[in-house]
Parts: sequence; structure tokens; C-alpha cells
Amino acid sequence: MNSSDHEDTFHFTTEVKVRLPETDAMGIVFHGNYFTFLEVGRVDYLHNLDLAEGHRPIRDFENVVVSAQLDFKSPARLHDLLRIDVCTREIGRSSFTFGFKIRHKQENRVVALGSTTHCAIDGEFQSIGVPESFRETISRYEGWKDISG
Amino acid sequence: MNSSDHEDTFHFTTEVKVRLPETDAMGIVFHGNYFTFLEVGRVDYLHNLDLAEGHRPIRDFENVVVSAQLDFKSPARLHDLLRIDVCTREIGRSSFTFGFKIRHKQENRVVALGSTTHCAIDGEFQSIGVPESFRETISRYEGWKDISG
Amino acid sequence: MNSSDHEDTFHFTTEVKVRLPETDAMGIVFHGNYFTFLEVGRVDYLHNLDLAEGHRPIRDFENVVVSAQLDFKSPARLHDLLRIDVCTREIGRSSFTFGFKIRHKQENRVVALGSTTHCAIDGEFQSIGVPESFRETISRYEGWKDISG
Amino acid sequence: MNSSDHEDTFHFTTEVKVRLPETDAMGIVFHGNYFTFLEVGRVDYLHNLDLAEGHRPIRDFENVVVSAQLDFKSPARLHDLLRIDVCTREIGRSSFTFGFKIRHKQENRVVALGSTTHCAIDGEFQSIGVPESFRETISRYEGWKDISG
Repeated sequence: MNSSDHEDTFHFTTEVKVRLPETDAMGIVFHGNYFTFLEVGRVDYLHNLDLAEGHRPIRDFENVVVSAQLDFKSPARLHDLLRIDVCTREIGRSSFTFGFKIRHKQENRVVALGSTTHCAIDGEFQSIGVPESFRETISRYEGWKDISG
Repeated sequence: MNSSDHEDTFHFTTEVKVRLPETDAMGIVFHGNYFTFLEVGRVDYLHNLDLAEGHRPIRDFENVVVSAQLDFKSPARLHDLLRIDVCTREIGRSSFTFGFKIRHKQENRVVALGSTTHCAIDGEFQSIGVPESFRETISRYEGWKDISG
Repeated sequence: MNSSDHEDTFHFTTEVKVRLPETDAMGIVFHGNYFTFLEVGRVDYLHNLDLAEGHRPIRDFENVVVSAQLDFKSPARLHDLLRIDVCTREIGRSSFTFGFKIRHKQENRVVALGSTTHCAIDGEFQSIGVPESFRETISRYEGWKDISG
Repeated sequence: MNSSDHEDTFHFTTEVKVRLPETDAMGIVFHGNYFTFLEVGRVDYLHNLDLAEGHRPIRDFENVVVSAQLDFKSPARLHDLLRIDVCTREIGRSSFTFGFKIRHKQENRVVALGSTTHCAIDGEFQSIGVPESFRETISRYEGWKDISG
């Protein structure tokens, strides 16, 4: 399933302002830099749920991105304010997926839609189960009825 | 269709060496930076076909990335040499899609698989048809039987 | 004169939070990325003086960085909040220099000290005189007695 | 002493090709990204002297950048080939300084001149003496008469 087919519901949003080195010679944000904006959104989302801590993206376990995808709908330019909507789409046994919508704040148009999927890992980059506390905190926030995952 | 389901055939490859600012505090390449490696692969692929020119990614028309996707299979680290395999998957009326495989040169393992889809545009960011000469050059290189697109 | 010998006085400050792709495999912010933080500081400083506009760093003329320098005093890490102190050090006939101090917000230690010098240019990258209105606005803000430059 | 006053002699050079995300909306390479090119030059220089190893910038000790400085003489654009000349300027008790000249390959003009100063450190980011073997290898390569430092 790709993000174009998927209708995410968002309860969380954060904001970035486009910096000069994030733009390129075409005069717009280089497409790869939007994945940095997703990172900012994810960090703020997890921080808001008190799941981050200090220098760690997630307090209780390591994770690695196993898939990342974005559809680009319209360009963003220098100094544009962008709203990053973030949700958790699903949590599997050892992986979980975030959904994102990036909107141009002033013009209220969609700039990009996408997702990142992460795998919970141990210190040797081996897959582990997603801890229950993580699953429960997010289920409660996202308002999922069935939290058995 | 995502890249995991898709078996690309590659006739072109280029190489990058992982730079310190491309790694992150987890000790591996930040996932968003792989889209820069795809950019390098695409530029070298188009240059090899004499479709690029000077400061322009494609000589005869502008293009914008409308979709980008990567699956990450294994990590890459500082100074690793990565082979970027590049192909064109398909050329539609106004868009075209490149496929990529990133391999760890020394260990010959797959690091990432993915694709980018581009739309041909005019100076006002409006969609235009893909020029025939572009289609023909790539069809011939990729060995497509039917070049009617 | 380098920044170590220079005691800047700051009236303006802004803030950034260290993002994962700004760190490197040593676990700290890659030194080159601090120049992006200076860019953020400069943009916010000029915006606060109403000298920026929309997609232009400075409303009334183009500029190019002709020199950039930083001394690194202590490291910064993932998610650290950094205060960017910004001042204008001097405005010459066609160039002007900003001074910067980057501090670790929570630990109140100096992370970096430095400066960037910019040249006012026309559309052909040729040096032009710094417009008087720019000089006057900054002189007034910085509290320079003599604004004759 | 800044690099404008300093006449470096270079015995080593390497090359980069400007990538799209390294340019910005002004159509030229963002000034901060030149510090990435210096990093590439330094890595290749140390590798050529067999002082690097695998994932480590320098085999025998850690180092941290304590100062970085560049003067920008002319712009570079998308796909430009840049020659990075690298030398070691001096090695002190616990620090050492590299000098750099970046030239536009096709037009043979100077793009930037600068330097980076590094401090040898232990695992706790504490300053240590520069190992003799490092000093001797570089002294020999650079052709310094007196290698007593």
C-alpha cells in the first residue's frame, strides 16, 4: 500500500522553516531533504508522547528505518513554513510505520505525503519485538480500539 | 508496485564512497542521504547516455521528482564503497521511473532497493510530454523491444 | 582578526535543535553543519529587522558569502538545543560581517564562535555598494554611535 | 594568520563533482558544503599516506576539528568538477592544521582557500599528544626538513 492510496488521520503536527542549504539549484527543496523533515516530525511526535529521551530517538529500544517513501505534490521554497503532520499507521510484531503529510503553511496546499517503516533492533542490529509499553502509549494516543496489535 | 516486488535488470553502475557528514550518530548512513546517492547514480546514468549537459540534469527538458522510495536491507558505514546500479523501469506519457540497487562493494550485500519517478515539466512547473528523443535513447540502451512507450 | 581574539556583543539570539542527519558517526554534530546553524541565525536576525522578504535572504540586494570561520569549543549531540547569538560586527563599503556565538542551552557552555563575511552583489555576481538603508537599520539596532561606516 | 595571507604548497589533490543537494536556491554550492569537500580531501590525503583505516579517519587516534575557515573566491555550480588540493601546514604538540585550495577543474580558477585545525583526543574527548608515527609520515611526505615539530 502506498501513501497515495492511504488516508491517514493526524492528531499531531509540528513545523519547520525551509533553510537555504535544503534548497537546490532548481530553486526548490531537494526531494531527499524532506526525509529530514519527516525525522523532525517523528522526533517531536515521540517527544510529545514522552517516548524519546535525551540523545535517544526512542528511550526503550533502538530502531532502524527499513523503508521510506514520499509522493511529492507541490514544491516548497526558501523560508517557507511547512507543517509536518505525523501519525502512527500501525505497529506490527517487530516493526511500526509512521504516516506523514507535509503542508505549505501559508498556502495550505499539500507538499508531500509519505511514510517510514522502522524495525525495533538490539545492539547488534538484530530484529526484536516492539515493547508493549511503546505499543500501548501510541495506541492510546492514536485512539485505536484494539491495542492487541 | 514497490521495489521489493520488482526485479530490475541493471546495465549501468556507478560508485560512491560514504562521507562523514552522510553518517549519523547511530554510526551508519542516515537513510535520507541514500536519496543523494540515487541522484549521483541518475546523473551518471544520464551523462553516460549523453542526455545531460553542463549544469542541467537533462539537456532537453526540466523534470521534478514526484515520488521516491527506498527499502533498506543492511547498513552502510563511514568510507564504505557503494555501487549504485541504475536502470530506467518505464517511460510513460509525461513521467518516467528509475530503479536502483545499492550494494556494499567489498561485502557484496544489498544495502538498499528503490525507485524515483519524475515528471517532465516546463518552466512553470507544468507537466509536459516526455520528448521522443529521450524515450528512444533510453529504450535503445535498456534493450526494450517495443519503444512506442 | 579571528573570532578568538574578538569580543562580540550580542543583542539577538535564536534557537535550533540538533537533528539526526546533522550528527555524524563520531556521535557529534559534523563541524560543517554549524554553518547551517549560522545561516538560520542570520536569517532570523535579518527577519527580525524586517530586512528579509519572502524567499529572499535580504530584500533589497543579493549577497554572497566570501569568508566563513568557526572555532569549535565543545561538542553538541543529537536533540541538543543550541542558542545562536548573532550580531553584525561591521559594515564596509561593499561587504559586511556577522559574528556568532553558539551555546549549549541546557549546559550553558560555548559550543562555537565564528563569523561570516558577505559581499553585496548584483545579478552578475559583481560587487556593489551596501545600500544605505541596510546600513542604517543595522547601525541603529546594534547601537553603533557613528553610522558613517 | 588566515589562509589569504598564507601560501600553501600542495603535493596532493583529489576531485569531487558537485551534486544537486550541495547547490542551493542561489544556483551555486552552499558555502557550508565546501567543508564536506575539505573532509573528502582530508580523507583521501590520509588514505594515500596509509594513515586511515576502514571506518576510522585516522587509524591510530581520534581527532576533533577545533577550527575551520574558508575564503570563497568564485562560485561553483551543479556538476562542476572541483580539484581539492590538500597539504598539512603544521603539526603542533596536540593539534595539526591542513591547508586546502579548491579549484574549478575546467576553468582552472580558484574557488576557495582555507584550513582546518584538528586536536588529537582520547575516548573522553580529552586532548592528547600527536603520535610520533603520524608526525613522521606526514613530515616525510610534505618534505619538511626538520621533523622535530
